[in-house]
Amino acid sequence: MAKVFDAAEVAKHNSADSCWVILYGNVYDVTDFLSSHPGGSKVILQLAGQDATEEFDPIHPSGTLDELKPEAKLGTVDPKTLAAKKPEVPVQKDDDAPAPLETLLNLDEIEAEATKRMPKKGWAYYYSASDDMITKSFNTTVYRDILLRPRVFVDCTQCDLSTTLLGHKVGLPIYISPAAMARLAHPDGELGIARAAAKFGALQLVSNNSSMTPEEIAAEAKPGQMFGWQLYVQNRRERSEEMLRRIHKMRDRYKTIVLTLDAAVPGKREIDEKSNFDKGLVVEPGVKGGTEKRPGGGGVGQQLFFGTASDLTWQTTLPWLAKNTDLPIVLKGVHTYEDAYLAAKYAPQVKAIILSNHGGRALDTASPPVHVLLEIRKYCPEVFDKIEVWVDGGIKRGTDVVKALCLGAKAVGIGRAALFGLGAGGEAGVERTLEILEAETATCMRLLGAKNIQELGPRFINTRRVERDIFDGDAELDRQGLWTKPKL
Amino acid sequence: MAKVFDAAEVAKHNSADSCWVILYGNVYDVTDFLSSHPGGSKVILQLAGQDATEEFDPIHPSGTLDELKPEAKLGTVDPKTLAAKKPEVPVQKDDDAPAPLETLLNLDEIEAEATKRMPKKGWAYYYSASDDMITKSFNTTVYRDILLRPRVFVDCTQCDLSTTLLGHKVGLPIYISPAAMARLAHPDGELGIARAAAKFGALQLVSNNSSMTPEEIAAEAKPGQMFGWQLYVQNRRERSEEMLRRIHKMRDRYKTIVLTLDAAVPGKREIDEKSNFDKGLVVEPGVKGGTEKRPGGGGVGQQLFFGTASDLTWQTTLPWLAKNTDLPIVLKGVHTYEDAYLAAKYAPQVKAIILSNHGGRALDTASPPVHVLLEIRKYCPEVFDKIEVWVDGGIKRGTDVVKALCLGAKAVGIGRAALFGLGAGGEAGVERTLEILEAETATCMRLLGAKNIQELGPRFINTRRVERDIFDGDAELDRQGLWTKPKL
Amino acid sequence: MAKVFDAAEVAKHNSADSCWVILYGNVYDVTDFLSSHPGGSKVILQLAGQDATEEFDPIHPSGTLDELKPEAKLGTVDPKTLAAKKPEVPVQKDDDAPAPLETLLNLDEIEAEATKRMPKKGWAYYYSASDDMITKSFNTTVYRDILLRPRVFVDCTQCDLSTTLLGHKVGLPIYISPAAMARLAHPDGELGIARAAAKFGALQLVSNNSSMTPEEIAAEAKPGQMFGWQLYVQNRRERSEEMLRRIHKMRDRYKTIVLTLDAAVPGKREIDEKSNFDKGLVVEPGVKGGTEKRPGGGGVGQQLFFGTASDLTWQTTLPWLAKNTDLPIVLKGVHTYEDAYLAAKYAPQVKAIILSNHGGRALDTASPPVHVLLEIRKYCPEVFDKIEVWVDGGIKRGTDVVKALCLGAKAVGIGRAALFGLGAGGEAGVERTLEILEAETATCMRLLGAKNIQELGPRFINTRRVERDIFDGDAELDRQGLWTKPKL
Amino acid sequence: MAKVFDAAEVAKHNSADSCWVILYGNVYDVTDFLSSHPGGSKVILQLAGQDATEEFDPIHPSGTLDELKPEAKLGTVDPKTLAAKKPEVPVQKDDDAPAPLETLLNLDEIEAEATKRMPKKGWAYYYSASDDMITKSFNTTVYRDILLRPRVFVDCTQCDLSTTLLGHKVGLPIYISPAAMARLAHPDGELGIARAAAKFGALQLVSNNSSMTPEEIAAEAKPGQMFGWQLYVQNRRERSEEMLRRIHKMRDRYKTIVLTLDAAVPGKREIDEKSNFDKGLVVEPGVKGGTEKRPGGGGVGQQLFFGTASDLTWQTTLPWLAKNTDLPIVLKGVHTYEDAYLAAKYAPQVKAIILSNHGGRALDTASPPVHVLLEIRKYCPEVFDKIEVWVDGGIKRGTDVVKALCLGAKAVGIGRAALFGLGAGGEAGVERTLEILEAETATCMRLLGAKNIQELGPRFINTRRVERDIFDGDAELDRQGLWTKPKL
Repeated sequence: MAKVFDAAEVAKHNSADSCWVILYGNVYDVTDFLSSHPGGSKVILQLAGQDATEEFDPIHPSGTLDELKPEAKLGTVDPKTLAAKKPEVPVQKDDDAPAPLETLLNLDEIEAEATKRMPKKGWAYYYSASDDMITKSFNTTVYRDILLRPRVFVDCTQCDLSTTLLGHKVGLPIYISPAAMARLAHPDGELGIARAAAKFGALQLVSNNSSMTPEEIAAEAKPGQMFGWQLYVQNRRERSEEMLRRIHKMRDRYKTIVLTLDAAVPGKREIDEKSNFDKGLVVEPGVKGGTEKRPGGGGVGQQLFFGTASDLTWQTTLPWLAKNTDLPIVLKGVHTYEDAYLAAKYAPQVKAIILSNHGGRALDTASPPVHVLLEIRKYCPEVFDKIEVWVDGGIKRGTDVVKALCLGAKAVGIGRAALFGLGAGGEAGVERTLEILEAETATCMRLLGAKNIQELGPRFINTRRVERDIFDGDAELDRQGLWTKPKL
Repeated sequence: MAKVFDAAEVAKHNSADSCWVILYGNVYDVTDFLSSHPGGSKVILQLAGQDATEEFDPIHPSGTLDELKPEAKLGTVDPKTLAAKKPEVPVQKDDDAPAPLETLLNLDEIEAEATKRMPKKGWAYYYSASDDMITKSFNTTVYRDILLRPRVFVDCTQCDLSTTLLGHKVGLPIYISPAAMARLAHPDGELGIARAAAKFGALQLVSNNSSMTPEEIAAEAKPGQMFGWQLYVQNRRERSEEMLRRIHKMRDRYKTIVLTLDAAVPGKREIDEKSNFDKGLVVEPGVKGGTEKRPGGGGVGQQLFFGTASDLTWQTTLPWLAKNTDLPIVLKGVHTYEDAYLAAKYAPQVKAIILSNHGGRALDTASPPVHVLLEIRKYCPEVFDKIEVWVDGGIKRGTDVVKALCLGAKAVGIGRAALFGLGAGGEAGVERTLEILEAETATCMRLLGAKNIQELGPRFINTRRVERDIFDGDAELDRQGLWTKPKL
Repeated sequence: MAKVFDAAEVAKHNSADSCWVILYGNVYDVTDFLSSHPGGSKVILQLAGQDATEEFDPIHPSGTLDELKPEAKLGTVDPKTLAAKKPEVPVQKDDDAPAPLETLLNLDEIEAEATKRMPKKGWAYYYSASDDMITKSFNTTVYRDILLRPRVFVDCTQCDLSTTLLGHKVGLPIYISPAAMARLAHPDGELGIARAAAKFGALQLVSNNSSMTPEEIAAEAKPGQMFGWQLYVQNRRERSEEMLRRIHKMRDRYKTIVLTLDAAVPGKREIDEKSNFDKGLVVEPGVKGGTEKRPGGGGVGQQLFFGTASDLTWQTTLPWLAKNTDLPIVLKGVHTYEDAYLAAKYAPQVKAIILSNHGGRALDTASPPVHVLLEIRKYCPEVFDKIEVWVDGGIKRGTDVVKALCLGAKAVGIGRAALFGLGAGGEAGVERTLEILEAETATCMRLLGAKNIQELGPRFINTRRVERDIFDGDAELDRQGLWTKPKL
Repeated sequence: MAKVFDAAEVAKHNSADSCWVILYGNVYDVTDFLSSHPGGSKVILQLAGQDATEEFDPIHPSGTLDELKPEAKLGTVDPKTLAAKKPEVPVQKDDDAPAPLETLLNLDEIEAEATKRMPKKGWAYYYSASDDMITKSFNTTVYRDILLRPRVFVDCTQCDLSTTLLGHKVGLPIYISPAAMARLAHPDGELGIARAAAKFGALQLVSNNSSMTPEEIAAEAKPGQMFGWQLYVQNRRERSEEMLRRIHKMRDRYKTIVLTLDAAVPGKREIDEKSNFDKGLVVEPGVKGGTEKRPGGGGVGQQLFFGTASDLTWQTTLPWLAKNTDLPIVLKGVHTYEDAYLAAKYAPQVKAIILSNHGGRALDTASPPVHVLLEIRKYCPEVFDKIEVWVDGGIKRGTDVVKALCLGAKAVGIGRAALFGLGAGGEAGVERTLEILEAETATCMRLLGAKNIQELGPRFINTRRVERDIFDGDAELDRQGLWTKPKL
């Protein structure tokens, strides 16, 4: 006759060392079975020592218990000793308390968490974009308009996300875009980003307007960890030259100079400007005349632009830069196939371009980088052979990363996402952000049937809805005798 | 002189056996007229024994009463005996009470009812889809973008919905897709679905992850009732082989093996994962490194995938399966014309394919099956001659069913709809779901001027809005020398 | 010295016979000026006898008063006698009170008013459409997608809206569509519609399911007033034949028989069906089997369809009808260019077709009539020469009327709009509806630079956004050898 | 040892003459540094005399203070004397109080402010547009559908917005459209607009229905300030002739006559009409018959149209006008390439056309001016060489201005925007409106890499999404033998 257990006795066996459960009034020792449970051991351990019938029943066909060895059935439970099961009560959530990072499942949720935790001024600076923020939004929605075409019957057990950038091996095709003033989000600042990036082998581009020095940011670099330094050329060129000399002293970590081109003047970021009014700061009346008038309130963005040169040209700036650095040059802020074509003519001095509209922060209604990728494919695909093409702007999902790579991008950058990760939880928040993107990217590739980055290509995507919107003005320009191929 | 009746006397004649009504102060015996009333007998019987003037007057032209035989007019009613008519009061509805199934008029209403009645965890598992659920939604909206082109002056008094699948006769071109864990919705489980399907002669595909055994589900099968069994190949192949042997013992009912290909790894179903957090379950912190990390909370979906093989290939898996079963093979989860083309090369071993994106639960932004139908029509229409093409995903209306058939599908599957039917009312809820779809499908065909399934074809639909969005990358791939026709 | 008036004295001159106003402290007699005021006399009369300075000042440049004759200035007002002006207070509106019809400015406002005033059951019957009401909505929005192209420098002082239908002169290119059960909206019923139509010389098509007899409806017809009678062929053909004989007796008014083809079976009008549940009527459980099952609740629409034949064909029904009537035949419910082409082959027996999807009440996602107009223009424009093409469905604005006419329609029908006019105010409400449409149509034509209906044509419209969506399946059908030109 | 300061002592140095700040407990004299601060002096002065650590820290890397000269560090602050910093409190806003104009950052915000401040009647008159206001809205959204294509590596330090109109130099390619009744917005009226326009050298077109006389409006004109006068031809031509004679006397300022063509009859502006009902004015019942019926309430717009001629033609009106004026003629209200083509045939008598749909106030669903620009480019680009093409309608952003210019427009007009500027703050509000548009236009051009108006062209924009919607009916018209090129 079966032994009868007291529920309190069963309750003691509530660990991986000794795991008992009650099912349909019987007591089972499932300790040995834990590792072979098709649903994983965790779900069993959550119910260890308890009556699991209610959870077990609706998701297991009859006969499932036959898979246990006969000796696993220890006996029955004394029903009188079983307390009534508590009804399922949703956990009370304290909306003001920080959410555990592992409960934030995607980049939107991380941004929402950061929005709650960050100072308003920093949030406004990161969140803002130009004018009506149409380009900021379009950067993301254009990825949604690209459809994926998964191939089946492909062994995708393994999936390798590593790649190379400028000849250096990186763990992810995702890098950190240069974004200013990380300590507005969290005291960990740019160093927190660097520590998180180290765990994924991800490249970090350091902003010219960082809130920490490039030395501080790279101080704890892991072997092989790769950084780049972003250059806003200053009106006082000697300041830029001095900075380049500082960077050169860290050439074991800083592997490239990223020259930013897409922000010759500051865009009109109204949310950023508004955040000053809310603080009650004195506002200068808009004054007409002269070049100093600033008809907005002047947010963080406008302040950071003071002193930045707006007179850069292919003919003058590149030679100056080549004279002052021997690091590979990346040109950031290319918006058109014409400029991509021109940049490729400067290879190998120019090693890569970044298709970017500055996260929608420069010129509103500017094309998204996906358009430029498609333009290059259509008008001058040879660019992909001559230089690396990176893109940033609007990345929210691993599927977005994969789509950009399928179109020919060598890597994609995240700017706001890293800052919001920082805002949500400092270094750990950035790590969570990269962890999510890495997992989503790998899931996407495996479901597509792609084992590594090199296999990605246009056959995996359907871009019809985007293609019909890209620039097609050559016929028109030809008619007017204004244009055929871009010229230097 | 006309006889004068007391209203109480009239009230006794309130049935089909003796049906009197008061109109304009006169009393009529309409018992004999019931069967010839152009509006049906029901509306009269609802007013039997009462003063029906208010209901009768606005919808009948004068002279209508002349259609009654003279002797039907029995006399007049004594106005003093008529109680004042009660004003029209909307019936008080108890929103928590189960709605009578016959008041649920469409699949959305059934889903709404099921959402109220089902446990949260089960609802989250069924409702969830990957990432932003774009593909789940697109599966449905793409049908709305296809317009119908009804032909008139066609005798559509009769309309036959029966067809054949894999050579077997079925009552409907609608089948039940394999969906896991039906008892999460209702104790009737997969058997309840089977009983309902029997009434319509509909095929049921049984999930590898059913909450009842395949034997239990098919236990009460009617003669000719058809089942199929879905196979998720297990890492431990011997488990799958054992299951095949069990299925073969029921080959009078299980007529096919459906090999699922579109879920090599689990999609990211955030609502499913969230439902665990809400229950207060312990959450493992996302751990970096190794293949075991799970940066989400792990919902029902992730648990079910444990042990499922991700190394299936055309070259290895099909021969293995052919060695272990002689039942016709259906490949589920084809997303591209390339794979449809490849599958057709394996005919007659492969008898059918199911165009499916797993209800939007695998890869978000994957194309809807309607796109793949159009791709096949454009690039390799011979596939339709070699194998049967079934589709699932997003079916909400009979018009959706008809559109898929017009594009060449042999049958369409419903997954969530059957489960929500179960959640709304167990077996009877599934029956109601099929009853609605059957009626809507027949109405659509009759209004189109199609008498049977075989007559359906592309002339009844306008797909312009969808066609311009389907994959058109061959030119691009050609240019790069990467692709022409799919190869094995 | 100027005479000084007491304000009370001025106040007496408050009519067109003697109209004084106070401006800037002066008193003017503007009686003679009323007729030459550029802004019309009404606005002055509203201020007659009062101080009009506040209203006058912001909209008149200085010097305006110089246009008055010197003797118009009578003197000054004694400021002490002027009461303080009351601040502008919005008139309190009683939302339950009927709105004066002249304050309802468009068809949407009339529908909103009718919705408030009508019994729920009638509203549900009129408002409802099939399934998700996509076609009902699309009928209207497709007009919004057509752009107008006004030509300037055209003398459009005169604008003539009259035209001919089947050779008879009508005052408007707008007719009343056959719609059942007008007395559900208002006791004036179909006769109220007839009286209103008479004022505009508009054709009225009388429904087979009218709530008044055709004799009653046409009883007060004005000389030249035109009616048509809609025929739903009954299963018992002799009933239809009898009705035709009744109509023939009124051939001085009933000039055509409109054979309805697009409702061989009733569509699924869920709102109509729901309105029964709300009344607490007993609902039959959906019963499986047989042709009598009705898985919905059976609204007014389903009741009206009892007895209607669903076996009409070109080969059998047209000859039968020709034998039973010598009135011109109009075929209502053509949805495709193929059927338009076939109908034209039956000219001159068939004199006109009505492109209609039954107001979205038959088959949901059926194409809107605008598509069929464009199909005919593309595939068989000769149809326009052989028969008249009328359209109905979705007309809300005079611009919609004009667009349909520019595409080749001879007239457009309004169904719900007339019924909602009736619901909003009986006969006067229908008159208001027609008055609005007539004025909007004339304004549109004059702004386009078209003096009469005959001048309207495709050069006045831009249909690019619609054209790319119309059926283009001939290539596809050709490929399959199924179709070239429609055949009898 | 460092000197220790009392916080009160530091607080005295709070101006540009002597500016001290406390950072990390140290006291610095930054007076000399103010002018070289990369973020501008304003942000420092806002914190002068205070502890700025909290603001300084998160946006400055360590080492930043090393840029100060050593002697700038004066000592330390006595921590006991530092008051606790007040938490950041958002300024309480009084929503009813006028917003400082410099806090209004864009035209939408100015309109919102004007809506709060203006009388309802004036707002309704300005805001209203015809029917469903589809064209009004489309005028703006069509600009959002045009993408910008910024070129990088272009020196855009200087950017010149000046251009010429009809041979006269203006400071901006933005002019004030003729809009009636400015004093409905603000007592400054049209003169306020003139004063603001003077500051930018902007052309002002004065409405025929101004609330001030043309003499008053131009009374304070600056040297070179340019006006134009809008002519609505009156039925009584002698009135128009008299006005022309008055304008000719101010030919040093009024440089053109703008003949308005697009409002031959008033559009149906329902919001304008409704505003009369709200005031409780008596409403005439809609009366049938005659040309005097007005089935609406008659808003300001309808009153202003009384007496305006609707019989203008190329053949009669242009010669009459040429006889009565020798000023250059601008034709306002061209909606089609056909009329643009015809107008160009009248060069040089006609010097310019204005593509306009009257701000959506004439014919609803008329094409936006951007369509007409694209039509001209496609069908008759020679028009741009023969006459100037101006556009108005929907301009909200500097990017809109630039897009119109890239498409070939010589200037863009703002109508409602100027009036709402007036409503928001009188003359200063109009100045703020122009200041915003000027700054946005310049920012856009500099970010595009365009130094002046002449460089703008189609290579800077992507119009694919708009191009596919423009009129393409020539093929259709050809088929019918109705049209090839527009004829006189």
